[in-house]
Amino acid sequence: MARLVVMYGTPKDAGAFDKHYFEIQVPIAKQIPGLRKYEVSRGAIGTPAGASKFHLIATLHFDDMQAVQNASASPQGQAAAADVAKFATGGVDMVFFDSAEI
Amino acid sequence: MARLVVMYGTPKDAGAFDKHYFEIQVPIAKQIPGLRKYEVSRGAIGTPAGASKFHLIATLHFDDMQAVQNASASPQGQAAAADVAKFATGGVDMVFFDSAEI
Repeated sequence: MARLVVMYGTPKDAGAFDKHYFEIQVPIAKQIPGLRKYEVSRGAIGTPAGASKFHLIATLHFDDMQAVQNASASPQGQAAAADVAKFATGGVDMVFFDSAEI
Repeated sequence: MARLVVMYGTPKDAGAFDKHYFEIQVPIAKQIPGLRKYEVSRGAIGTPAGASKFHLIATLHFDDMQAVQNASASPQGQAAAADVAKFATGGVDMVFFDSAEI
């Protein structure tokens, strides 16, 4: 199992972010080859110290790291990445890793 | 579904970190009430720009945000949090959020 975790910082306009994210980014990203599961945070993202700097966290599930690389290199992955620049006004942190249940 | 994601920055001594994490932290954390699933990253954590600043990312799964709060307040949760200070020499970022498949 591999995960691509996309953490969006608090945007300038949360309503505009959400509209673009769910109406444009999600439909593009769901076409990415090899995507097994797509999860998004709902509501506020907390930390032990209080509110976090993140507005939304998406977790995309793939079979393995090779699938993540293939997805990133695919036209659909490139289109999703290009779209991020259009709405992620609070910045974005992206990490990917192999993951195992213990 | 709710998630508690714990992101550990690159520690001073990766070997010592891993030994403490898997031999001490994991057994403590697995006793946290309400924990449904425990996943940890394996190997390097990447970003689109190259290596990330993180050494290990753990994802703890709970039924809902109330369960995360109960877990954090529990003696086992408190013990796990207290233990983190003993090995997380590269710092730690922790976020929790409600999550839904889309």
